[in-house]
Amino acid sequence: MAYLGLYGLQHRGQESAGIATSDGDEVYLEKGMGHVADVFTEERLGNLPGTIAIGHNRYSTAGDSDVANAQPILIRSHRGKIALGHNGNLINAYRIRRELEKQGSIFLTTSDTEVVLHLIARSAQRTIEDAIFDAVREVKGAYCFLFLLKNKIIAIRDPLGFRPLCLGQIDDSWVVCSETCSLDLIGATYVRDVQPGEMVILDDSGLTSLRPFKREPTRQCVFEHVYFARPDSIVFGRNVHSSRLAMGKQLAREHPVQADIVVPVPDSGNSTALGFAQEAALPFQLGLIRNHYVGRTFIEPKQSIRDFGVKVKLNPVRSVISGQRVALIDDSIIRGTTSRKIVRMLRAAGAKEVHVRISSPPTTGPCYYGIDTPTREELIANRYEVDKICKFIEADSLGYLTLEGLLDAVQGTMDEFCTACFSGQYPVEVTPEDRRQLRLFAERAGDGPPADRNRS
Amino acid sequence: MAYLGLYGLQHRGQESAGIATSDGDEVYLEKGMGHVADVFTEERLGNLPGTIAIGHNRYSTAGDSDVANAQPILIRSHRGKIALGHNGNLINAYRIRRELEKQGSIFLTTSDTEVVLHLIARSAQRTIEDAIFDAVREVKGAYCFLFLLKNKIIAIRDPLGFRPLCLGQIDDSWVVCSETCSLDLIGATYVRDVQPGEMVILDDSGLTSLRPFKREPTRQCVFEHVYFARPDSIVFGRNVHSSRLAMGKQLAREHPVQADIVVPVPDSGNSTALGFAQEAALPFQLGLIRNHYVGRTFIEPKQSIRDFGVKVKLNPVRSVISGQRVALIDDSIIRGTTSRKIVRMLRAAGAKEVHVRISSPPTTGPCYYGIDTPTREELIANRYEVDKICKFIEADSLGYLTLEGLLDAVQGTMDEFCTACFSGQYPVEVTPEDRRQLRLFAERAGDGPPADRNRS
Amino acid sequence: MAYLGLYGLQHRGQESAGIATSDGDEVYLEKGMGHVADVFTEERLGNLPGTIAIGHNRYSTAGDSDVANAQPILIRSHRGKIALGHNGNLINAYRIRRELEKQGSIFLTTSDTEVVLHLIARSAQRTIEDAIFDAVREVKGAYCFLFLLKNKIIAIRDPLGFRPLCLGQIDDSWVVCSETCSLDLIGATYVRDVQPGEMVILDDSGLTSLRPFKREPTRQCVFEHVYFARPDSIVFGRNVHSSRLAMGKQLAREHPVQADIVVPVPDSGNSTALGFAQEAALPFQLGLIRNHYVGRTFIEPKQSIRDFGVKVKLNPVRSVISGQRVALIDDSIIRGTTSRKIVRMLRAAGAKEVHVRISSPPTTGPCYYGIDTPTREELIANRYEVDKICKFIEADSLGYLTLEGLLDAVQGTMDEFCTACFSGQYPVEVTPEDRRQLRLFAERAGDGPPADRNRS
Amino acid sequence: MAYLGLYGLQHRGQESAGIATSDGDEVYLEKGMGHVADVFTEERLGNLPGTIAIGHNRYSTAGDSDVANAQPILIRSHRGKIALGHNGNLINAYRIRRELEKQGSIFLTTSDTEVVLHLIARSAQRTIEDAIFDAVREVKGAYCFLFLLKNKIIAIRDPLGFRPLCLGQIDDSWVVCSETCSLDLIGATYVRDVQPGEMVILDDSGLTSLRPFKREPTRQCVFEHVYFARPDSIVFGRNVHSSRLAMGKQLAREHPVQADIVVPVPDSGNSTALGFAQEAALPFQLGLIRNHYVGRTFIEPKQSIRDFGVKVKLNPVRSVISGQRVALIDDSIIRGTTSRKIVRMLRAAGAKEVHVRISSPPTTGPCYYGIDTPTREELIANRYEVDKICKFIEADSLGYLTLEGLLDAVQGTMDEFCTACFSGQYPVEVTPEDRRQLRLFAERAGDGPPADRNRS
Repeated sequence: MAYLGLYGLQHRGQESAGIATSDGDEVYLEKGMGHVADVFTEERLGNLPGTIAIGHNRYSTAGDSDVANAQPILIRSHRGKIALGHNGNLINAYRIRRELEKQGSIFLTTSDTEVVLHLIARSAQRTIEDAIFDAVREVKGAYCFLFLLKNKIIAIRDPLGFRPLCLGQIDDSWVVCSETCSLDLIGATYVRDVQPGEMVILDDSGLTSLRPFKREPTRQCVFEHVYFARPDSIVFGRNVHSSRLAMGKQLAREHPVQADIVVPVPDSGNSTALGFAQEAALPFQLGLIRNHYVGRTFIEPKQSIRDFGVKVKLNPVRSVISGQRVALIDDSIIRGTTSRKIVRMLRAAGAKEVHVRISSPPTTGPCYYGIDTPTREELIANRYEVDKICKFIEADSLGYLTLEGLLDAVQGTMDEFCTACFSGQYPVEVTPEDRRQLRLFAERAGDGPPADRNRS
Repeated sequence: MAYLGLYGLQHRGQESAGIATSDGDEVYLEKGMGHVADVFTEERLGNLPGTIAIGHNRYSTAGDSDVANAQPILIRSHRGKIALGHNGNLINAYRIRRELEKQGSIFLTTSDTEVVLHLIARSAQRTIEDAIFDAVREVKGAYCFLFLLKNKIIAIRDPLGFRPLCLGQIDDSWVVCSETCSLDLIGATYVRDVQPGEMVILDDSGLTSLRPFKREPTRQCVFEHVYFARPDSIVFGRNVHSSRLAMGKQLAREHPVQADIVVPVPDSGNSTALGFAQEAALPFQLGLIRNHYVGRTFIEPKQSIRDFGVKVKLNPVRSVISGQRVALIDDSIIRGTTSRKIVRMLRAAGAKEVHVRISSPPTTGPCYYGIDTPTREELIANRYEVDKICKFIEADSLGYLTLEGLLDAVQGTMDEFCTACFSGQYPVEVTPEDRRQLRLFAERAGDGPPADRNRS
Repeated sequence: MAYLGLYGLQHRGQESAGIATSDGDEVYLEKGMGHVADVFTEERLGNLPGTIAIGHNRYSTAGDSDVANAQPILIRSHRGKIALGHNGNLINAYRIRRELEKQGSIFLTTSDTEVVLHLIARSAQRTIEDAIFDAVREVKGAYCFLFLLKNKIIAIRDPLGFRPLCLGQIDDSWVVCSETCSLDLIGATYVRDVQPGEMVILDDSGLTSLRPFKREPTRQCVFEHVYFARPDSIVFGRNVHSSRLAMGKQLAREHPVQADIVVPVPDSGNSTALGFAQEAALPFQLGLIRNHYVGRTFIEPKQSIRDFGVKVKLNPVRSVISGQRVALIDDSIIRGTTSRKIVRMLRAAGAKEVHVRISSPPTTGPCYYGIDTPTREELIANRYEVDKICKFIEADSLGYLTLEGLLDAVQGTMDEFCTACFSGQYPVEVTPEDRRQLRLFAERAGDGPPADRNRS
Repeated sequence: MAYLGLYGLQHRGQESAGIATSDGDEVYLEKGMGHVADVFTEERLGNLPGTIAIGHNRYSTAGDSDVANAQPILIRSHRGKIALGHNGNLINAYRIRRELEKQGSIFLTTSDTEVVLHLIARSAQRTIEDAIFDAVREVKGAYCFLFLLKNKIIAIRDPLGFRPLCLGQIDDSWVVCSETCSLDLIGATYVRDVQPGEMVILDDSGLTSLRPFKREPTRQCVFEHVYFARPDSIVFGRNVHSSRLAMGKQLAREHPVQADIVVPVPDSGNSTALGFAQEAALPFQLGLIRNHYVGRTFIEPKQSIRDFGVKVKLNPVRSVISGQRVALIDDSIIRGTTSRKIVRMLRAAGAKEVHVRISSPPTTGPCYYGIDTPTREELIANRYEVDKICKFIEADSLGYLTLEGLLDAVQGTMDEFCTACFSGQYPVEVTPEDRRQLRLFAERAGDGPPADRNRS
């Protein structure tokens, strides 16, 4: 089940995969580098007996993509064996780590997740639940933690609820996972989200819900709806595809365009483009084809073929594009270089005009809460105004969705959603020191969820 | 280049990949089981010096998915080293093989392709070109052969032109490949198709074209346009996406439907559904999401989760489907079981009605020319009328595109296209003995191009 | 260099191999399961820049033969990165571990070695050297530790000196390793042993020696000379081959035999048998041949061939054995079953009589200091007198070397050598609780050096 | 059984291993690069059902160490599936191959063995046995062939009997293998040798022996006794260890020496040195220790440590060597460079004098019959007289066993043994053209049995 569920969440991390199980007496762990399909053989699955399990797909950006950092992380402590899978990013992990090191702790991984396990082990609380409270009260940032002990699973979501975590049921069993698409896959029914700040305990006596944090406005990641989650998932209580359709419609209203066809950058732009086309009453066209077989270990050609990196993933359909004024729909512009390559590719395929429409506001700040974005300096929207970006990517026009438009599309408010990368309003303060340390940390560890490396 | 080109053709075969090169003196070969990205490391690419190269992606259906059968096949003969990559299927390979065996030939692979190399070696002709003519005059069926010798590449396409083969140019070099999407990938320009019955010789003196066969009506595989080729490719001189758009429009005219939304079975149904929606003036919706991370070595769950095989690949978007009358667009129905699973999946997601529209006529016969279809007995359209099929797949209505409609959509005639799997008119006769032998052969070898195993 | 040196110490551990290096700024680590030759590729060696390095070959007996337990272990602490390789076994690791866990420490490996790193990190001392002193004052048992920091290597040997550690020089550089055969291999000169209780610091300023422990009588492992070390090594200042020759001579004096030939159980019995033959004036014969190609992953035949496990390793030379009275020389008898198989094997090859002579006293107790011996209950000499053992192994006579004879042969005394497994005098007390815990620990971790699994 | 037997013959080839089996209906094959232990997993053994089997360990010297050349080779022909394992070397394979190529045959491997399968397939004979006779009448050189068909195994040994082949029995089954040590391993009884020129057919009706060749004097390879075979084997009806003992005694008589100790180059020199020591009444000493863990993929150190290649395999025992006059016993001197390294190594360990004694005559010619020796030009004994070789290897004296002495030791005559590499009398003529072609062939294929690459 955990194995199957991981298949449905493969898009959230392709670097390593792992599963921990318990049969009530002993905790077992198998993990390795690569996709779920590569890591798990029948033999390895056979090494995982038991009736409860947690799994994890991980992505890291920097060099330390080491099996030691693969999750779940399994430790032994005076509380017994604990396995932990973490989705999110801890802002102050480095500071706590330094503090713990001063107190004599040693670290065997370069993951921010290890500090939580130290805090739990050091807590004076008697129960594991209270120890986890102690620990999470110290860490800041984004986290959905799944703990597996020999006789229970404990899930906890940070009080601002940055990352999604949902609860499903199959027969008499409970399932907790990042997105509902995994529930669908294993035939479970979506019940509700694990609430921001909620702790859920799954054991023999069923589900127990605790609310250790006082309720406050949440800051759920709006970018999950823009790009990260799968369109068939319900995230933060709303279907992602529906959000994107609404973004597309709103975008068409905010930035109407004189075009002949509406073309998405597949696959993340598909739903948005559909909404755009409907609202603009323009024909939706599949003018770019994505090659889904691109390997992880792609070997760059020596005599560099022009724009090869994009071409291996995307190819225009000349018969669709040629002679047309194209409205190109994408979710965001990061560095601008990929967008420029796509615009050029369309022109080479005969596009008369290319109008770029982006289903989110300009990305002006990095994410510190679990999305892998580059540093502020690399973000083109941090350096240029929209018209300069338009020139840079060589488009005929460029329109970004407004923040209000985006929030309308996800049917939310600034009090529910984190919009830091667009608005600069960081709900958990990141001091310059944290930033510096995060970077050091990231160089060593990198624990953010995946991002399409080819995004501009 | 060959390596990059293979990336663009990965959809045509995922079982094994190989490249043969020559530096003018020596012929080199590297091949292995798996995707292009898995087979080729920097080290293995480094073992392939030279200035000319051929590559091959292979798929086989049966047990003999052995590295010995991977292509290109490299032999030594009195004509020197010859490497051969083959796209297609030879009808009479087994008969020729038996004949050659009687004459004392031995076979080290179970591939139909090996017989061609025997015939070339045995030819009394002086030149390799004439020897190839001798050989291809004996074999019947579908073939695009790419021969690599130490100083030239020879391409030949069967006179009926079952499989596509196109010719491109990059700087001063020629490129020959199955689909134009590979040309786009490496930055080459599409020049024209290698004509049915044409032999093209690429060497130091450039391109030489020979026409050993007398011209006759062709039989290009219409199913390439329906399903097999990538939509961004130009195949048989026509863009595949455009064909599918036209199929969708024609299908809407032939089988109008009272529906609220048009939903494709992604990805092959996307273009068709778009055409259908345009013609029917119904909203096109992405109501099924495909998971592109499904591994080749998927381990089936023991306590079989209902319809898991399909669920891991496709998931409905409840918010799109719920309460709607759905027109579901797919390219074909093979056994009917997958279609039924998808219909059930849509109903479980709340669809009020599900109307299935198929962008090709009923598949009543197997393909002997290179598409992997099951035996006649397994084809549901061979056993049932349309209304019974409709019941079997549990749809509210079912409509197939007519043969005339299909040919209109690809802008062709019965004198240009092979429609055997729909019309039963097999352009190269397959005797009952051939069929029996083909089956034996397939059990041992299976050399057809890939098909989606989950197709109904 | 470290890589080459590990080749020379492969006999001390075949389960995993690892190397840590430093270039003065950063510490690097590569390790993996398997032999040195399997773990290290050119690429992995290339990942290890720097000018100082430590390496480790490891063996574990139980299930946790996990890459996480492979050594060196690398941690981050407030003292920076520290890599540690450990030869030996800590008696009280489990007790300390429980203590540390109570104080909130977490453990990511199941190795006894991890506790040392915790103790160092927790030490209040300012310098790493003092912190190591703090740590080693708490642990009891056998250890040679090699610490690598970014700018120095620190070696420390326990005050009783259970395990060997030698010091060599090559050009201007120092080398520290378990046996001198590694010095020979890399062309270094043997200088002296690291003394029991000595700490040696190797850094830019050369070698510094510290003696944190007060000198006391040592307890160097006599079994290194009997079986474990390579005969070409100098161990504890004495050549192993010379010791074995002397054991053989003494054994011939203590237990003369009416035999026609003297045959060793190769390879460990070779030198001893030579000494025996010389003293007894009997012909030395190579009557048993060892197969050196036996793989680690040997698959047992299903219909069990009689005594296959021994036969795949040893085969008698019938022409040597047939009709002869054989004096068979082995180093020890553990469970008795292997000895019995060899005796039977010799009789099947025609031996008239088989007289077994053992170059050590009866093994009555397990080793807690780093040699992998089974529990007391499994040791045949713990259950039976010599004459009963003789019957069990089906020999015509059986003679063990006396403890005095053994000490004579190694030119040592009870105040220099640990003879616990023969004499029951355990120099570091092992409480019943430790024993129980050691076993628990061993089941989880197993960190002892290797032993020939086929020894009786 | 076949798998276990291959363990016992691992010393005859370490490059690849393979097994073919039959269950009476179908023939199965599994093979791969590497040692038996690496190639065969439980899963791969599970792919080999049936009741009859043949196996093969292969070694090749040149670049084409490709899995395509691994044996057994499996072909399909009009006689059904045939698997073939070959020990030996065919002199005229290249000539036959050229001839077959002219007749239109193609070759998929670069192995000399493939030609035999072509000849069998082309034979006009009705029975497979007669076809094999036809084929073997055409090939010249050394061969023991093991054919597996779906219902029988056929073994045939060339009329001169270059390579050994023995026959054993276990319960009611027959076993055929190169050396008796494999019979011992699986518990089979040695019955007799397959005679030179004999064909043995093993099927349901038991064993049938045919003698297609007229009897003539044999030419069994004397070097099997000198070096290649395992000492516990019976080869050509005589135990190898006994031969080597006799060689050592004869060598001591022919070349007495004023020495203090006799030291073998292990392991091949062990038995010989023992004989030498007995005859010379000098103490036999194990003064050189061999490291049996040296990996196949040894990575050479960059800043080349002096004589590292030898040091990683052999290390002197200083306490044995120091101050002694050493009689060093080796089996042969090939290039002289390894011998020189060993002599230097002994001197560095304190040897006063080093007297080299070789248990065979000077190696003046290459072997064309299955032992991997370098070209004539590289053989030091082909360029220098004994006294110059002595100087080259820096020994104090050097003595070679005479040809007569060697034949005495193996109790044979020139009419029974091939001594070509010592005597220049090649029993099967090798024309200059064959030699040239053999070399070309070897560069492409190399099919000789293994040799210790470090031999001088």
